[in-house]
Amino acid sequence: MHPFTANTAESVSSLGELRLIAAIRRWLGAASPKSPFGIGDDCAVLPPSRHSQLLTVDPVVYGEHFDDAVPPRAVAAKLLKRNLSDIAAMGGHPRAAVIALALAPTVNRRWLEQFYRGLAAIARTYKVPIAGGDITSQRDGLTATLTLVGESRGPRFLTRTGAKTGDWIYVTGALGGSILGHHHRFTPRLAEGTWLAGRPEVRSLMDVSDGLAKDLHALTPQNAVPSLCDSAIPISAAARTLAKRDGRTALAHALTDGEDFELLFSVGVRADRNKFESAWRRRFATRLTCIGRFTRTLDPDALNLFDFHGYEHLR
Amino acid sequence: MHPFTANTAESVSSLGELRLIAAIRRWLGAASPKSPFGIGDDCAVLPPSRHSQLLTVDPVVYGEHFDDAVPPRAVAAKLLKRNLSDIAAMGGHPRAAVIALALAPTVNRRWLEQFYRGLAAIARTYKVPIAGGDITSQRDGLTATLTLVGESRGPRFLTRTGAKTGDWIYVTGALGGSILGHHHRFTPRLAEGTWLAGRPEVRSLMDVSDGLAKDLHALTPQNAVPSLCDSAIPISAAARTLAKRDGRTALAHALTDGEDFELLFSVGVRADRNKFESAWRRRFATRLTCIGRFTRTLDPDALNLFDFHGYEHLR
Repeated sequence: MHPFTANTAESVSSLGELRLIAAIRRWLGAASPKSPFGIGDDCAVLPPSRHSQLLTVDPVVYGEHFDDAVPPRAVAAKLLKRNLSDIAAMGGHPRAAVIALALAPTVNRRWLEQFYRGLAAIARTYKVPIAGGDITSQRDGLTATLTLVGESRGPRFLTRTGAKTGDWIYVTGALGGSILGHHHRFTPRLAEGTWLAGRPEVRSLMDVSDGLAKDLHALTPQNAVPSLCDSAIPISAAARTLAKRDGRTALAHALTDGEDFELLFSVGVRADRNKFESAWRRRFATRLTCIGRFTRTLDPDALNLFDFHGYEHLR
Repeated sequence: MHPFTANTAESVSSLGELRLIAAIRRWLGAASPKSPFGIGDDCAVLPPSRHSQLLTVDPVVYGEHFDDAVPPRAVAAKLLKRNLSDIAAMGGHPRAAVIALALAPTVNRRWLEQFYRGLAAIARTYKVPIAGGDITSQRDGLTATLTLVGESRGPRFLTRTGAKTGDWIYVTGALGGSILGHHHRFTPRLAEGTWLAGRPEVRSLMDVSDGLAKDLHALTPQNAVPSLCDSAIPISAAARTLAKRDGRTALAHALTDGEDFELLFSVGVRADRNKFESAWRRRFATRLTCIGRFTRTLDPDALNLFDFHGYEHLR
């Protein structure tokens, strides 16, 4: 569905601001609590909490993160879930979201309705109240920016730093080929993230959003390199499909395609890996793979990540 | 300064993502703390707090909130301060901000540098760490969306609801003509807001951002109307200047021009107004005006707000 319309009567500009805001509150329904805990005041209010608060922001932009082929409900799902993935990447769980929309006057009301109904559905699924927002005109296009507040579940949250030379490198799920549908159908690894934050053998955590080859650098300790076993990299079926189409290898897709939204983390060198992996399997059906370790120099038979490049945002 | 350039060498696209992010961290300097309390991880972390948390989001969009006549530093100041005004409007104070930028590849690097240096300066002034953000390409234009987390100073925060029939209506500062410069030079009323939250006679609070005539409806109790004394409305010098130019009255400008960013609040009917106003004057130099009260029916000699319309966002 095309987000824009040449027919003024079908566009958001024909609604006017007050009626549009009233419509949005109707579309969001129970996903948006009453003010002061939801839409309707100068700020949304979150009750006090004794845990560390987590804050992340990510947009979806027409022509960049979605196009006419992605249904508006899927655009909304992607917007909320990519922020949820950032909360999962710290081992946290979500508290509330606010959304700012900048939209051309030609945006189709029906597109916007489906977008908000999709947002409401996914917000209910993950129990994230849509607590506020803003709507503004812009000349062209459609940019939706969502900010998510989360918090750590216990006293501990995980960051990208903490891995040491010798640590094992793990990744969830399978990688690559996200463009074929995973980029809006993925499940943010929230339960896995909070579980990892409670395991002392896990030393660092992040999500894979720009491709493993690019993102893994952020987890790599100083004076170390990631030595990956190429046969261990979990390659998605979509990456293999893409490889058949374009002649690149499935491995290259797995390492460099963006928007996997899987968790990438390190486990201390002295950890009991069998015990850790058994505990994971008792708790989750999610695939878990040890793909290598951080070493002082690159193992002679390891994969050289410098041969691959991840997703570049500003082209 | 024009935000865009036809010269590719001067544009953000020539920098590439990693160098641009490194440049932004340099431009922000001390305004952006180290991760996990600032930029550099999947989320920014805020330490636990025993107060209610406040959450607000507002963008600035090229062609809508600023144009070539507004210096980039002023655009950044406006972006942060309009969010600060929302925090002030609940009687809170700010904790941390995240900023999402969606920008055309043709955005001028020098414009962006001045924007971030301006943001850093105003963030230091108001002691708001810039804790994270996101940068994305979009086909055209420039949209900067800032989300601000704040908190109540004490156990109490104020909302738009709470006024009762008979209550007095107060406004800070002088209104109208913001377009002549106040829209980016204003001072968010943070100290005033937290002080008001500590005064039991104050029953409701908001900021005036779309013009008093439009915004006052949100403060008006059910089954009441605002009876305003037209000679009491504080009219800014800029509103008088505009009136001379365009033939509308200065009062019309004061009531309907957007972006005053002043505080509007109600004081209980049984409060000692003299005591309240004296306490204000001992504490603040900011002008304070009682402009009327909420009555059951419109006083015969009161101003009829229905004759005026505030700023409409979606045209």
